[in-house]
Amino acid sequence: MTGKVQKKRDDLRVRLIDLAEERIKTGGISAVRARDLAKEAGCAVGAIYNVFGDMNDLIMAVNARTFKRVGAQVSAAVEAEPPGHPVKTMIAMSHAYLHFARDNTPAWRTLFDLEVSTEEAVPAWYLEELQKVFSLIADPLTRIFPDMPAADVALMTRGLFSAVHGIVLLGLEKRISAVPVDQLEHMITLVFSHLTSTPSEK
Amino acid sequence: MTGKVQKKRDDLRVRLIDLAEERIKTGGISAVRARDLAKEAGCAVGAIYNVFGDMNDLIMAVNARTFKRVGAQVSAAVEAEPPGHPVKTMIAMSHAYLHFARDNTPAWRTLFDLEVSTEEAVPAWYLEELQKVFSLIADPLTRIFPDMPAADVALMTRGLFSAVHGIVLLGLEKRISAVPVDQLEHMITLVFSHLTSTPSEK
Repeated sequence: MTGKVQKKRDDLRVRLIDLAEERIKTGGISAVRARDLAKEAGCAVGAIYNVFGDMNDLIMAVNARTFKRVGAQVSAAVEAEPPGHPVKTMIAMSHAYLHFARDNTPAWRTLFDLEVSTEEAVPAWYLEELQKVFSLIADPLTRIFPDMPAADVALMTRGLFSAVHGIVLLGLEKRISAVPVDQLEHMITLVFSHLTSTPSEK
Repeated sequence: MTGKVQKKRDDLRVRLIDLAEERIKTGGISAVRARDLAKEAGCAVGAIYNVFGDMNDLIMAVNARTFKRVGAQVSAAVEAEPPGHPVKTMIAMSHAYLHFARDNTPAWRTLFDLEVSTEEAVPAWYLEELQKVFSLIADPLTRIFPDMPAADVALMTRGLFSAVHGIVLLGLEKRISAVPVDQLEHMITLVFSHLTSTPSEK
């Protein structure tokens, strides 16, 4: 491929991600259709599949951007907290995740709406983005549970992420917990403020 | 309506729920199509809408059955636990929910896949089924947190249900926590065994 052809291809790639991102931000995954994107990008439908293997690859590229935005918002919440209070840090991170989901619902939903046929289908760079979010959680967790084995910390990191995700998901859908966002914040605070390093004896 | 007409209508109603339930058990929400059901039930498509307002009403009727099955499985887990150990009871309930979701994935997914346009659209009998599941959680929770205000117990009940749901959802989708089911059980145990009535000081 000549440099000029490669450049044109790279430009189209970025343009398609930009266009798909705009659509996902307002309409979620179902708003991304090859025909519409081709029209907006001024290219043939076939040109899209020349740059991305399929529409899932394109949506995955948008999801990577969304994961970066989630990570940035959660990181900012961590930095705004005084150090030395890992439980407060966990609560602040969880609230930041809730606010991101509330303010960016279609893009956030698309992170989880994309069908992933097999685990192997998830590219390494995607798992790396996810790993960055996990390490933000593992850090205060290790301080709350200094004696917990590393394997359990890894499991609990995923568990707490999934737990907060469940609270945000069902809460924003008003499906199970039809409560306002400030009540969801309090719900998260209640759960985390009772997590202690001493195992419960009850 | 004469008794005979009403009887015929009631029979068709039960038959349609049975048929939809069979389809949902194997194929989830997308396997329920009016045309197919009419063919199987030996009635006109219009007859379905004569009995149910729309397909959502029919799916809701199947979901009520599924919620009853979830409740029965969770109740059985509570009864199998020795009394006086509310944390162990919560863990056993959560594991029962995980196992139900694993063994009945399409029907369980349909509980949450059904679009509910507005909160008011949820019928009272549906909320009652949900309330029964919540009261199973609220009972041990009140014993773990005897001094917690009732409003917080209600919020935490929903919060913990949503938290377990999130762990099960992302875990079974192998999306965030690509771990085997026994690891998911351990994940749930880890989270609950560190929930204590003394607020964390960290």
